[in-house]
Parts: sequence; structure tokens; C-alpha cells
Amino acid sequence: MNFTLQHQAVNSQARAGKLETGHGTIETPIFMPVGTAGSVKGIHVKDLKEDIQAQIILGNTYHLYLRPGTEIIEEAGGLHKFNGWSGPILTDSGGYQVFSLGDIRKLTEEGAKFQSHIDGSRHLFTPESVVDVQRKIGADIIMAFDECTPGDAGYDYAKKSLALTQRWLERCVNQMEKTKPLYGHGQSLFPIVQGAVYPDLREAAAKHATSIPSDGYAIGGLSVGESEADMYAMIEVVNPILPKDKPRYLMGVGTPINILEAIDRGVDMFDCVMPTRNGRNGMLFTKNGIINIRNKKWAADFSPVDQDGTSFVDHNYSKAFLRHLIISNEMLGAQIASQHNLAFYLWLVKEARRQILTDNFKAWKEELVQQLGKRL
Amino acid sequence: MNFTLQHQAVNSQARAGKLETGHGTIETPIFMPVGTAGSVKGIHVKDLKEDIQAQIILGNTYHLYLRPGTEIIEEAGGLHKFNGWSGPILTDSGGYQVFSLGDIRKLTEEGAKFQSHIDGSRHLFTPESVVDVQRKIGADIIMAFDECTPGDAGYDYAKKSLALTQRWLERCVNQMEKTKPLYGHGQSLFPIVQGAVYPDLREAAAKHATSIPSDGYAIGGLSVGESEADMYAMIEVVNPILPKDKPRYLMGVGTPINILEAIDRGVDMFDCVMPTRNGRNGMLFTKNGIINIRNKKWAADFSPVDQDGTSFVDHNYSKAFLRHLIISNEMLGAQIASQHNLAFYLWLVKEARRQILTDNFKAWKEELVQQLGKRL
Ligand SMILES: [Zn+2]
Ligand SMILES: [Zn+2]
Repeated sequence: MNFTLQHQAVNSQARAGKLETGHGTIETPIFMPVGTAGSVKGIHVKDLKEDIQAQIILGNTYHLYLRPGTEIIEEAGGLHKFNGWSGPILTDSGGYQVFSLGDIRKLTEEGAKFQSHIDGSRHLFTPESVVDVQRKIGADIIMAFDECTPGDAGYDYAKKSLALTQRWLERCVNQMEKTKPLYGHGQSLFPIVQGAVYPDLREAAAKHATSIPSDGYAIGGLSVGESEADMYAMIEVVNPILPKDKPRYLMGVGTPINILEAIDRGVDMFDCVMPTRNGRNGMLFTKNGIINIRNKKWAADFSPVDQDGTSFVDHNYSKAFLRHLIISNEMLGAQIASQHNLAFYLWLVKEARRQILTDNFKAWKEELVQQLGKRL
Repeated sequence: MNFTLQHQAVNSQARAGKLETGHGTIETPIFMPVGTAGSVKGIHVKDLKEDIQAQIILGNTYHLYLRPGTEIIEEAGGLHKFNGWSGPILTDSGGYQVFSLGDIRKLTEEGAKFQSHIDGSRHLFTPESVVDVQRKIGADIIMAFDECTPGDAGYDYAKKSLALTQRWLERCVNQMEKTKPLYGHGQSLFPIVQGAVYPDLREAAAKHATSIPSDGYAIGGLSVGESEADMYAMIEVVNPILPKDKPRYLMGVGTPINILEAIDRGVDMFDCVMPTRNGRNGMLFTKNGIINIRNKKWAADFSPVDQDGTSFVDHNYSKAFLRHLIISNEMLGAQIASQHNLAFYLWLVKEARRQILTDNFKAWKEELVQQLGKRL
């Protein structure tokens, strides 16, 4: 895996880069659609590639481990063969999902014991086992096993939690060294910087992560309940410490505005379920603002879903028809809204890149964020 | 609307024809995907056209009347404009759905009073009002308002019910004459032949329907609980009475075998929710038999969904991946299975047509029905 920093914006930390993987080159900044169980909800793989123009997708280790299980994925020859997505894949470590299980998981030094949300069966994730699972999934980018510290964690808890994440990181690194890729393409481990909303913890975390030579670094534990000001402040603490010549991935973020603000602060990679999840509920992101398509005002609006949109769904269907589908709980409504939102997110990062490369990012961003939050 | 009978099979009543409508020509025999609320569940309109190669779709008057309502559809300029499907559309009369409501509907000479399954609001459908609604929807083919006699109806009930259907048919015909198409394309009313499983009632019904000059005729009240033998017997009673130079539509039928047997008996048009509904549950129809993709035996079968299939989904996804999606309740699973099944149904009628035109239908059908029912 090789990252080339192509351009740094003026008056901004925004960067344009190129990340070469065993499954093709990613142009950054980039947004990664979330394919929880190996499928981006409601989206055909060919549309993901040709229509949405996704360059890399994310898979959830926790979900894939439980269903279909690593054995099936290994037999298929890895997730790329299994789901038919031939571009790069990043998998999370499962930590975030396991910690979201609440009562049915228990954290120890060894790892996390949990019960499956599907059938109640008992499992143990350790730093070693989640590396092994991600090896078998065949992810191009493997995430370290960490504790995603809750947004409202007190300082003492956050400090202890970070120390655990750091010990686990070292175990992940060891396990990566002891094991090999299974399918002939390279796999890179990204450490995750935790530390909740405490600048000194984030600084220590960034320094510790940076001490481990890696192909990229992630910022985790943000967009988990803290304020947006805190989120941006933590990015500003961490990014200057991370190496300039490696990609930076902000996990699980966020709204189009969050993404532009984070790009402005030097982040290169993003993922979020928002475009698909909110889409299924009828929320559409556009460059002019947010549409709640359930709103009565769209009932007889026969204009295209998004006349500026890049997806075929933007032009083949009207707002009134999409509203009818969403209100009627028709699958096609969820499909259209998800596809629109993903195409919009991919447009957003592609346009951000273009603006960075032409040294107009800051002005473009300042103007666009005025629009993006509007309720249409 | 104009029907040309192009060829009659040897040793069979099977027919190949051409039905010209205001939205293009349909080659018969044909299967019509069901777009209940104006959308075929899980299928993009362009896939319906280009991938599945549907030639005509069906809309449900009951559902469209309740949601989005005829006002919105009229404002859109008709259902074709509203949902973006530019080919022919047939709408049912709403009778079947209303009569399925059970306790919350009441039948009188005037029509059917019912309560919406959505919000409990009270409505009245009459022969006149359902013609008006279908005028506003802009269906190329309008179905008469009838009582769909239950499959287990006794003779006396069936006879009284048929008499009502016949009086209602005459009121529909009057209303058609009193009204005009709204969107510049022609609209044709198809009478529906009822009579439950009683040959003399079916015969009387077919004669009465035939006495009304129409662009096509439908056989209703089959596949509603009676035996397959009864269904085929009723088709054999009705079809010889119907005019040879008009298309014959068997409503709500059925399995691939049902369709071939009905084609063999002179039916030209079909609709059924089976390909999409059963697809969502993981049942796949193929020329080699039926696959229950939930079955454990497919868990590690990485062969294409259907190597003989005509849809891109047949080749872009494996059986094992589709199984995983269906088991995991992923939307994409329902989309793939629905698209496969619809493409298979369209292949089936297209191939039947080809076999009729080359005078090989009977032999081809006899061989294929041996396969279609097998459990793979
Ligand atoms: Zn998110
Ligand atoms: Zn049916």
C-alpha cells in the first residue's frame, strides 16, 4: 500500500492524495459506503461502482464474523470474491459493534466476550482473533482492535480505556507480523487514535500510534455523542501529529458538513451509515440543503429527485414519486434515496478534491457549508 | 388497441400474437410484473425495461387510489408520467383487493363500501367510480369491476355473484362510453369472466362477456383456492367461447407450470405477485426447477445465481452470497431474487412464444414442465 500526497490546499489543511492498494488506486479525500454484512443496503454492486462511483467500501467484521461466518468467506476466496466487489475493502475491527452490545458483552484485558445479537451464542474477540478474522475476510485495510470510548466518558475512564487500546494495538501489530495475507494481495493495519474529548489523551494517543510505522492512521471515538466543536478540536489536536505522508481516516463521520470540516482539518478518508440509514427514512442530502421527502410539500413536486445529481435515480424519478414510495414503505423508495445520498457523498469528496487541486478549497467549502445544512 | 393473432400452435391452443397499445406493442404470450403501488417491489424502472425486458406492467387501483391518491396521479399527468414507466400499463379494478378486506368491506348492488387498510377511512367503489379512477390513472387496459368469487363458493352463491358481476360489467361499459381518456392515449376495458368452478356458470359468463365488443377478455376468480385441475378445466370451458381475434388474460396466475398449461389452453396474458413475493422469501424459479436459497445446501455454492439466467443479477452474484443476503434480511437479497424471478418469467413467455412460432410448443412444454416443479 502506497500513499502519495499530491497537493495541500492553501489556507487549509485539506489534502489531495492517491492511495494505491492491491485492488486499485483510491483518490483522496474519499468517502467509503458501508457494506455492513458485505452488501451496501439496497445497492447493486455494479451501481456502487458505475453509478455511485465508489472507490472503496467498508465491511463490518462483527457482522461478517457472525454471518455468513469466516469459514464461508474463506471458502469463497475472501470477501471480494464473495460479494463481487473488486475494488479495495476496509474492515473495522468489530470493536465498535461489540461495545454497542451493552449488557451482553464483557471487557477484559484479554479482549471482549459477547453474545451474538442474532442467536445469543457466546464469542470472544481478542486483538489477535480480529486480525485473523480480517485476514480471512481479505480486507485491504485492517483496523486495529480498540475500545471505542463513549462520548461522555470521564477523564479517568478515558485514560484507562486508551491505555487498553494501546496495549491491544501492540498485540494487533504482533499478530499482523506473525500472519500473512491469504489471497495474494497486501493487507495493511491502521492504528486507531482514541482519547475521547481530552486533548492531552488524544495527543498521547496520536504520538503512540505514530510510533508504529503504518500505511495509515485512524481517528476513532468521535461522532459518538460529543459536541461538534469537541470533534473538530480533537481532529485539530491529532492531525498535526500524524505523519503527512500517510492517509488519515476519521471513523464513522458524518454529515456532509462534518466531512468538509474534517477535510479542511486534514482528514483523507471517511465512512458513515448516514447516507443509507437516513435515506431509508426519507432524508436526502443535496448541495442546496436537506430534503425530508416525507414532507407534504413534495407531494406534487414532479421535478427530478435532484436535478444536479450524478446518479440515474436523480433523473429517472420525481420527488413526488419518491415521496409516495417512502410513505408507502416501498423498497424502491429506500433504494432510490440510498443511491442518491451515496452518489451525493461521492460527488462531495470528488468535488472537494478538485477544489483542493485547483487551490480553491477554502472558499468553495465556506460557501457550500452555508447551503448544506439548510432545510429545504 | 389492436390485436393480431400471428400463429396458432399445432396440437395445442397456444397462440402467438401482437397487441398494439398507445404505449407500444406487446408480444404475446406475455407476463406482466405487478407494480402494486406503481412500483414493482425492489426493481428500478430501467431494470424492468432493459434487464427484465418487461413489456407491460400492472398497477393496483385499490392501492393507487388510497396512496398517492388519484389527485396526485392526475396532476402528474397519469401513472406513466408519475412512475416513469413508459410502456403499457394495465390496472385491475380494485375488486379483488376490496373483497380481500373481509370484515371491513360491505357489498351492495351499488358497489363495495370498504375501510382503508392504511387509516381506516371509509370509501365506496362502484363500477362507475373504478372506471373513473382508472381513467385518471391512465391505464392502457382498464379492468371491469367484478366480484372475485371465492374458490370455495357454493353453486348458489357463485351464480348470484356472477349475476352481480354481469350487471356491474354493463355499468362499467356505460361509464366507459360516457367518459374519455385524459392523456391522449387510448384506453380499453376488458370484461372479466367469473363463475367459480362451475362449467355452466363459466360458459354463461363467457357468452355474456363475449356479447360485449371489447379489445380483450379476462378470466378471473381462478388460483383462489380451487384445485389446479379445476383451474385448467375452467380455462378449457371459457377459451373456446372467447373470440379468437382478441387477447385473453388469466388474472393472478401463477407458477411457471400454471402459465405454460394456460398458454397451452389458449391464454395470452398473465400477472402474478409470485416472482417478487416468493423471491423475497428466497424462492427462485429456474428452468431446472425451484431453489429455496435459504437451504443450507447453498451456503458454500459459489456458482452464479442462475448460469442460464438472462438478468445481470444471475451472473454478478453467487448462490452462496444470495443465500447470505436473504438469511441476513439484507434488502439486496430481496432485490436480486425478485429480479431473477421476473427475468425468468419474462424469459419463459418469450421462449414459449418462440416455440409456438416454430411449431414446437407442445413438445417443448411437455419436457419443460417435468423440470419446472423439481426441488433443487
Ligand atoms: Zn456515522
Ligand atoms: Zn398469483
